[in-house]
Amino acid sequence: MAVYTEVTDEELAAFIAGYDVGDLLSYKGIAEGVENTNYVVHTTREPLILTLYEKRVARSDLPFFVGLMEHLAGKGVPCPVPRHDRKGETIGELAGRAAALVTFLEGFWIRRPKAEHCARVGEALARLHGAGADFTGKRTNALGPSGWQPLFDRFRDRANEISPGLEGVIADELAALLPAWPQNLPSGVIHADLFPDNVFFVGSELSGLIDFYFACNDAFAYDLAICLNAWCFEPDHAYNMTKGRALLKGYEQVRPLSAAERAAMPMLARGAALRFLLTRSYDWLNTPKNAVVSPHDPIDYLRRLRFHQSVGSIAGYIGEAP
Amino acid sequence: MAVYTEVTDEELAAFIAGYDVGDLLSYKGIAEGVENTNYVVHTTREPLILTLYEKRVARSDLPFFVGLMEHLAGKGVPCPVPRHDRKGETIGELAGRAAALVTFLEGFWIRRPKAEHCARVGEALARLHGAGADFTGKRTNALGPSGWQPLFDRFRDRANEISPGLEGVIADELAALLPAWPQNLPSGVIHADLFPDNVFFVGSELSGLIDFYFACNDAFAYDLAICLNAWCFEPDHAYNMTKGRALLKGYEQVRPLSAAERAAMPMLARGAALRFLLTRSYDWLNTPKNAVVSPHDPIDYLRRLRFHQSVGSIAGYIGEAP
Repeated sequence: MAVYTEVTDEELAAFIAGYDVGDLLSYKGIAEGVENTNYVVHTTREPLILTLYEKRVARSDLPFFVGLMEHLAGKGVPCPVPRHDRKGETIGELAGRAAALVTFLEGFWIRRPKAEHCARVGEALARLHGAGADFTGKRTNALGPSGWQPLFDRFRDRANEISPGLEGVIADELAALLPAWPQNLPSGVIHADLFPDNVFFVGSELSGLIDFYFACNDAFAYDLAICLNAWCFEPDHAYNMTKGRALLKGYEQVRPLSAAERAAMPMLARGAALRFLLTRSYDWLNTPKNAVVSPHDPIDYLRRLRFHQSVGSIAGYIGEAP
Repeated sequence: MAVYTEVTDEELAAFIAGYDVGDLLSYKGIAEGVENTNYVVHTTREPLILTLYEKRVARSDLPFFVGLMEHLAGKGVPCPVPRHDRKGETIGELAGRAAALVTFLEGFWIRRPKAEHCARVGEALARLHGAGADFTGKRTNALGPSGWQPLFDRFRDRANEISPGLEGVIADELAALLPAWPQNLPSGVIHADLFPDNVFFVGSELSGLIDFYFACNDAFAYDLAICLNAWCFEPDHAYNMTKGRALLKGYEQVRPLSAAERAAMPMLARGAALRFLLTRSYDWLNTPKNAVVSPHDPIDYLRRLRFHQSVGSIAGYIGEAP
């Protein structure tokens, strides 16, 4: 949520001149995006978003991320469309950073989503999964199961500083999940971070999906399990079954889940909760106190994990027999 | 340069509905404005800037600031135009803050101004002075000469922490300036903070003047002296006479200076340098190290002050006989 890199008017005007997007009219750094620096840019032709990629995004991953947005937009997914420069490139260089210029999407994220928003997100996620089917790029999920133990090892000796007993909870969960993790589920390109602040609405219509910088190849149902965690819990961390049902039914209106995916849902939801518990715990312990961006409280995901541990089947999420 | 106050989508949609400006399409917090929180708002009708007034702006001053923008815009000065709500008000309440919705001005501020930019700023400042003549609001300049000694007293015991000997320099300058400060110069509404980041250009055309939150009633020539300090020194703090000449000639194309104003210019420029030396010194000593907004280096204005002390007449700024 910060402007990490300042861009001067002269270097931006020169950068913009490399694209056929009209002349620069204005640009303002926006408090959006935790990893990167973003500007709203107005030209004589259209509003755009300029992203400068900061060090947490691996440069070698950029062709996957930017290429994926272009691919998905071409299939009708409402996501930012990268503009090509006059040489045909979508990734340029500005102020010492890799940079991309993408279309501006109207809409704003919903601070308190209702069930109707969850239904729209489910539908959009399923369309994204379908639209990615013929995308040729590949990216391993660095935050998938094989990454959890190494990440835990980087902070386990301090885990109990966050909450007494947290080290044991995570160790037990890893021991339970890793050997039993569902294999061979339908897979493809997933968003992997479709939280409410990455989904724009205008009125009740979903107008945009943004922030593809965790996208990767993994199980579709795992992406849905991430959304269950991200969209279907109340501020007091209680699960809201009406929202969960809306999310899953919205998804299944576009892409019905297989029996194996339905059976795996509680396990996938536990894994998704563990993934955010791990990354938030690491960030909590390693973010300087005076950082511009405050870390999220990891305990929110400990509470979600405990809920998922109590769920025996997908019926526990939708209130019906599976 | 920060978003101090977060606004939820629901409260913003309700706020916007109180105005006849179309429906809310998007809003993004921008890293602009040191004192207040600003959002770029797109509606179905137009782009707008939403400002939430934080505690450093006195609520009782808002009718002056917002009324002045409306008055000046009505006279053709390119400044933000406040929108009226359905009850006719220009100042509302949002997220616990006083709030105003104003038009979005295209353009961007020039990081390295050239003489041609200085000429445009001079012209625009003179037009602003003329356009304010029949504005009925009044506001004392809290950072004018009568405010300097009390402000200095709040940090003088720590002034030498900034630079050895700074306490003595400021005390001597106050002793020299206060008894000799020019009186009875032509006065009216001045901007009082027309730094490069408050002036937008599109190409070489000046497209906007913003940030009227130091505006007050004071001598016109003092406003010009502030611009001399803000626009006509190089990054190494050397005075650039070409820029100074362009600024003053630009101003005089619209409003010629009187003999008294020309004679007072070195004294006014010293006062303007002292005013920013004082406020920057106070902020430097009182800003927490982990603050979102870093304070400006006061020493830049100590250097300017020393230059102005060496100037005997307006010829020292323009390179010609007065």
